[in-house]
Amino acid sequence: MSLYDSEKGLIFKPKFDSNGLLSAIITDVKDGQLLMVGFMNQQAIDKTLDSNIVHFYSRSRQKLWMKGEASGHILNVIDIRIDCDQDALWIIANPEGPTCHTGVKSCFYRRVKNGVAKMNSLEMIE
Amino acid sequence: MSLYDSEKGLIFKPKFDSNGLLSAIITDVKDGQLLMVGFMNQQAIDKTLDSNIVHFYSRSRQKLWMKGEASGHILNVIDIRIDCDQDALWIIANPEGPTCHTGVKSCFYRRVKNGVAKMNSLEMIE
Repeated sequence: MSLYDSEKGLIFKPKFDSNGLLSAIITDVKDGQLLMVGFMNQQAIDKTLDSNIVHFYSRSRQKLWMKGEASGHILNVIDIRIDCDQDALWIIANPEGPTCHTGVKSCFYRRVKNGVAKMNSLEMIE
Repeated sequence: MSLYDSEKGLIFKPKFDSNGLLSAIITDVKDGQLLMVGFMNQQAIDKTLDSNIVHFYSRSRQKLWMKGEASGHILNVIDIRIDCDQDALWIIANPEGPTCHTGVKSCFYRRVKNGVAKMNSLEMIE
């Protein structure tokens, strides 16, 4: 195994898509729940590593943003992991307040109802 | 609240990016561990809902694929959730065998070493 192999090695070399982005998945250190998914460019990764607070790149606003910069509901970084081909980051975080901008803990508050998917229905998760 | 509101309503209306894709995050129903992250187009969502086996769209191969179609290491769908703006799916799955093509359970087997990030180093997670 070479240190320089991107899959098995130990060199951090994020692989960005054609827009210069990769996926960042945020889970809660306390209970493991999936909180949100965003995108990062190199600058967002650098800011996150420097500050230990999660930063994303907003595709809609086309700018860097610190999650919680307006609401105060920041995500403190506990651990960062990267996947085999280095195009996705998993950040285990300690959230301050609800993560979703709708005011709930996780952005994933609805279930796709199984078996009736063709009726396109969701249900709230308690 | 309107049923038709994309954030609070109960209509499943996935929001795809300019390439027709959204993020799909896979966790293990048994222990909650993050297994892998992929992308889905409408066809991958339809196939996943119809078969209860996770299908992705491969950006590199530019085609639909059933995870495990070659290895047999499929992901059986247990539950599907969608985020506030409906551009990411969280699939809770029961994996058959290791999920990562490298032969380990999760694709996220390396940690970005905190504090020495500028040295670009990773470490294996036991």
